[in-house]
Amino acid sequence: MKALVYHGPGQKAWEEVPDPTIVDDTDAVVRVDAVTICGTDLHILKGDVPAVTDGRTLGHEAVGTVIEVGSSVRNVKPGDRVLVSCITSCGACRFCREGRYGQCLGGGGWILGHLIDGTQAEFVRVPFADTSTFAIPEGVSDEEVLMLADIGPTGYEVGVLNGRISPGDTVVVVGAGPIGLSVIMGAKLFSPARIVAVDLADSRLEAAKQFGADVTINPSREDAVEIVRGMTDGLGADVAVEAVGVPESFEQCTALVRPGGMVANAGVHGVPATLHLEELWIKDVTITTGLVDTYSTPTLLKLVASHQIDLARFVTHRFAMADFMEAYDVFSAAADTHALKVVLTP
Amino acid sequence: MKALVYHGPGQKAWEEVPDPTIVDDTDAVVRVDAVTICGTDLHILKGDVPAVTDGRTLGHEAVGTVIEVGSSVRNVKPGDRVLVSCITSCGACRFCREGRYGQCLGGGGWILGHLIDGTQAEFVRVPFADTSTFAIPEGVSDEEVLMLADIGPTGYEVGVLNGRISPGDTVVVVGAGPIGLSVIMGAKLFSPARIVAVDLADSRLEAAKQFGADVTINPSREDAVEIVRGMTDGLGADVAVEAVGVPESFEQCTALVRPGGMVANAGVHGVPATLHLEELWIKDVTITTGLVDTYSTPTLLKLVASHQIDLARFVTHRFAMADFMEAYDVFSAAADTHALKVVLTP
Repeated sequence: MKALVYHGPGQKAWEEVPDPTIVDDTDAVVRVDAVTICGTDLHILKGDVPAVTDGRTLGHEAVGTVIEVGSSVRNVKPGDRVLVSCITSCGACRFCREGRYGQCLGGGGWILGHLIDGTQAEFVRVPFADTSTFAIPEGVSDEEVLMLADIGPTGYEVGVLNGRISPGDTVVVVGAGPIGLSVIMGAKLFSPARIVAVDLADSRLEAAKQFGADVTINPSREDAVEIVRGMTDGLGADVAVEAVGVPESFEQCTALVRPGGMVANAGVHGVPATLHLEELWIKDVTITTGLVDTYSTPTLLKLVASHQIDLARFVTHRFAMADFMEAYDVFSAAADTHALKVVLTP
Repeated sequence: MKALVYHGPGQKAWEEVPDPTIVDDTDAVVRVDAVTICGTDLHILKGDVPAVTDGRTLGHEAVGTVIEVGSSVRNVKPGDRVLVSCITSCGACRFCREGRYGQCLGGGGWILGHLIDGTQAEFVRVPFADTSTFAIPEGVSDEEVLMLADIGPTGYEVGVLNGRISPGDTVVVVGAGPIGLSVIMGAKLFSPARIVAVDLADSRLEAAKQFGADVTINPSREDAVEIVRGMTDGLGADVAVEAVGVPESFEQCTALVRPGGMVANAGVHGVPATLHLEELWIKDVTITTGLVDTYSTPTLLKLVASHQIDLARFVTHRFAMADFMEAYDVFSAAADTHALKVVLTP
């Protein structure tokens, strides 16, 4: 089969590799019907994730059809249409039993396209198939579901739910890339008073408006803290969600939040940030971090099926898998191409 | 009357000042029957709290007897024995109505011995007397109650409750001064599996054992992270409470906590800390900060009255108010005197 293979920093190829097979009796082999590229894949290609080694097939998001299952798989069978999400879970360890699948101690967690071959291929082996795939409801398109492989639950769990977004809140989302937009979409389910999007790129702020932001702030021209305090009796935001992954945006979130407020970090960070405890110790602030667990995926699938959220809006570009290299070019040049998410099909 | 008056960094005196009087109709004037000194007072004397100006009477903890009340005070009357706690609350603002009295927007918060004259005096004016004093149950001594003016609720609310300490938890308390010991005492109410105290001073670790710590670690000789992981299947503590107020101890807490765990900051910080988001972003950690609100004080009064907690154990030294200067010397030399809390009476 063909797969998108990582060959060290800056090096990748769409090339012939062996077909995956059942290794453990809890595995499934899934034919990939639709796959996307994540910002994390770009991090890997920069060499930021050293656990990913030469020869690894990338990708941790797919919709596909089950081709073969191991002898102990009970919940999925050949022919089933399934979502393969970024988190694999053994289902049995201490953290899986708490619903904290991202921290799986039994060999799961984020492993696809990271520690084992991933989904950017014609076929993929999915370990712990019973607890790592989701059946897809009737009447929902592959594109709608594919966005639930990562950005949907990441924005919802790590941004919206960790941030405890509630009716009447002033919510600030710093960073209006796909994760920030997912947070905005999920936040609207909780009827906040207003959603404020902060980003350095006006094109992303425009997307934020389309996804539901009420106010947009470009900190290259405006003082976000002053504007947010001005709309909150001088206090600050009830919830600030970090969706960039750099120290400056995290520190901005801690400056934007009101006394007693929440800072939910959804960004992937590579370096430490400064925590201004000399100001924050007295402010009753709660800061959360988190890898997505995908415990919300069944809920989000229902919200998609009932048309309460429209995740297909993220899809801006479509390619055949044979054009995988071009898809990477378009996605990595998002500043120019305005790509949000790309979808590749066989 | 006599009062302990701040005269700029390093300068204080027990000297004659005017008696306090009713200023607002919600005030009470309270005769101080017992008063203590807080670590925060030492910070003020170092000049760390510039809002405290020359001429300010220090102190934010007292037990006393109501002498006079303003015309609109309804819940306390002359002759009542009351706790005057570190937090004054208007009772009516947005934050007071949420029970977040420490963030009072109506002129309360931490004001005694800070923005207005405090309790280290023969008499004190207490604003918003109805919502800023607590009636003392029968059969409870002044010394027992006095420890509820600050360290009792601070340890309980900002350490124990913010940290969501639960049965079976491994709890690490970094810093075994009065606040850390208060956290240990409060933690035991929730039946953790073990409480680990971490401190650089062996004498404080000995006190921690007496207050209920099961394990003590002196990081000048031992690797706290290694020891705690060794007792938690390699994962780390369920809850780490910071009770020192320096960057090193905060950073140690974030290194000690397990995936999915809690870091509760109870220390008063003067400088920023480094937040290792490059490790923490993926760890599902929750970090809380907080000023005490004293919403738990009625609960703690009941626990004292029923002898479920013994706060009088904090009192190591007793003085007459006339010896206030000596009491400061003993308290500030705690490393040598092993003072935990001192009590002064008329």
